Amino acid sequence: MKRRALAGGERADWLRLSRARGIGPITFFHLLERYGSASAVLDDLPSLAKKAGAKADIRAPSRDEIEREIAAADKLGAVYRAACEPEYSACLAAIDAPPPLVCLRGRRDLLNQPAIAMVGARDASAAGRRMARDLARELGQAGYVIVSGMARGVDGEAHVASVETGTIAVVAGGIDMIYPPQHDQLYAMLAERGCLVSEAALGYVAQARDFPKRNRIISGLSLATLVVEAAEKSGSLITARFALEQGREVMAVPGSPLDPRCRGANRLIKQGAALIESADDVLAAMQGISPPSFDEPIGDRFDPRDADVPPALLRAVREALSPTPMPIAEIAHAVDAPHRMVAAALAELELAGQAVTHVGGTASRAV
Amino acid sequence: MKRRALAGGERADWLRLSRARGIGPITFFHLLERYGSASAVLDDLPSLAKKAGAKADIRAPSRDEIEREIAAADKLGAVYRAACEPEYSACLAAIDAPPPLVCLRGRRDLLNQPAIAMVGARDASAAGRRMARDLARELGQAGYVIVSGMARGVDGEAHVASVETGTIAVVAGGIDMIYPPQHDQLYAMLAERGCLVSEAALGYVAQARDFPKRNRIISGLSLATLVVEAAEKSGSLITARFALEQGREVMAVPGSPLDPRCRGANRLIKQGAALIESADDVLAAMQGISPPSFDEPIGDRFDPRDADVPPALLRAVREALSPTPMPIAEIAHAVDAPHRMVAAALAELELAGQAVTHVGGTASRAV
Repeated sequence: MKRRALAGGERADWLRLSRARGIGPITFFHLLERYGSASAVLDDLPSLAKKAGAKADIRAPSRDEIEREIAAADKLGAVYRAACEPEYSACLAAIDAPPPLVCLRGRRDLLNQPAIAMVGARDASAAGRRMARDLARELGQAGYVIVSGMARGVDGEAHVASVETGTIAVVAGGIDMIYPPQHDQLYAMLAERGCLVSEAALGYVAQARDFPKRNRIISGLSLATLVVEAAEKSGSLITARFALEQGREVMAVPGSPLDPRCRGANRLIKQGAALIESADDVLAAMQGISPPSFDEPIGDRFDPRDADVPPALLRAVREALSPTPMPIAEIAHAVDAPHRMVAAALAELELAGQAVTHVGGTASRAV
Repeated sequence: MKRRALAGGERADWLRLSRARGIGPITFFHLLERYGSASAVLDDLPSLAKKAGAKADIRAPSRDEIEREIAAADKLGAVYRAACEPEYSACLAAIDAPPPLVCLRGRRDLLNQPAIAMVGARDASAAGRRMARDLARELGQAGYVIVSGMARGVDGEAHVASVETGTIAVVAGGIDMIYPPQHDQLYAMLAERGCLVSEAALGYVAQARDFPKRNRIISGLSLATLVVEAAEKSGSLITARFALEQGREVMAVPGSPLDPRCRGANRLIKQGAALIESADDVLAAMQGISPPSFDEPIGDRFDPRDADVPPALLRAVREALSPTPMPIAEIAHAVDAPHRMVAAALAELELAGQAVTHVGGTASRAV
């Protein structure tokens, strides 16, 4: 994928395609490569679905609908930026299957500065809050933008402490939705002096399932993810896992084993995360880490020559799938076909509502 | 050094030689190998000192003096055991330059059971104390003897919690000296139901410099050293450093970076110590660790053929020394002589009060 700005019409087409039901980011970029443009994919969507024997309706939202959303965003001072565009974070563009577009409000210049994510417990202890505050302030002064999730506790402390130096909040709902409601002042501050980022449609109310998707963007925007206080099975650990999958650094502040809010962070350290006691520790761990290059393009993993998937392969891949996600490489091995052909087959099956491709390069049968 | 029990007279000779001023454990074992027995060394001490041009008086205590100490210990139910004897801990005997003898009071059978040292802050937090208690109890139930230093805080908690399953206290003063004084009940309990260990003479009041020597025995008796709460520059970190030098495991319980009592433990984890949240973590880290074999003898690193050190080498080694301790290997390189000859020369110089050999294989000029 070449880095380039999109004209307004093309960006609207990207947005329409990305909002089509059943089209995840993996399929999005696959189709984009195959057809050359989003508008060409949109034109062929009905036949694509039909060809694969679609059960699901995969119509994209209308051009009008999308234009209305863009205009509403504009009134808020928010814009959409596609993964190929210069104002989209190069760091986020480098992850496996980045969001095709994000909605941005506030200081978009922050998106292409070196950033560190800080995440932690909503019910953080006073000590955890102070750590978050001190670390965010000192890392900001050292030149890092702080990325977090606008939640209560560690997130809020990190944002407030880094607003002078640069802070980015990734929200799970629409960029116009204030969540949690008591963070209305924080939201206003972030919109004015920081940057808000959302993958969702305007007005969308986040559901529980949206938070992991949001966490993937938090880690993706950042060179490293620092966990301050995190219980076992907490959202912060999900963010840390995404950071690892994305090849980014993971760091954690330790705490007493008697405090359940520290167990997740302690476990990360056991598993190899850098133990952080101060901003100096973070800066030491950041030595030699440079931002991913935008020239490592997303789309290049798809080969337009795979445009036509033989029906026999489509059937074989469909039969090889089970409800348990399996690496695409293993599926390719099972059906004895090249990886890129199997990826193409999976994209068609996903369009047809028969397969689901997952971040991390796995696929399962749609259930 | 062959493992064997000593007759009373021979043990008294060992004790006399080990108490001779200017004879540290390295020189002790060197002379023992060279002369074949402690009594032979004692007979030749005056000429040894003279030969090396001694400035210092290196007379050993008299036989009578030592017999009186042994009798006084006997009244307390305490005995001396030499590093070659079966009742001396095989784990301690395996360290570089073990104490030639230790005084033991209480359950000597504990000394040859697998042991874990638990050390930490005297002013431990309530959380640290509870961790110490829980870990000592559970590790005791899992079959490990707990070794500590009878201090306030973590040490005391660890001893009390493991008295049923087996606990060893190493004291820096004489085995009859109760320190700290408020631990008189703990002392009585340890003498009766645990085991007390001391390298010092009966009645000796510990000085600040004796505590590191004591810590070396705590780690030496143990397969692993577990640090519960420890500030920077604390005695617990000295124990951990000895454990590393002795090739033993080091483990630490993490804590908040805001609590100075946790900084030492956190630093150990940064440096590679196992992060411990529970007894299960300790047991997992102990997998595959077996006690050192007694057949890895101390004395074998000295070669009796080096009995006669040429005067020219003696001079060269003396001139190569500075107040800064240097590895013996480097000194050997500087004077271009075999390592074992240089070690022999150093032993003579130490006897003469002109050199000091240190644990860890370094030597410096006596100042």
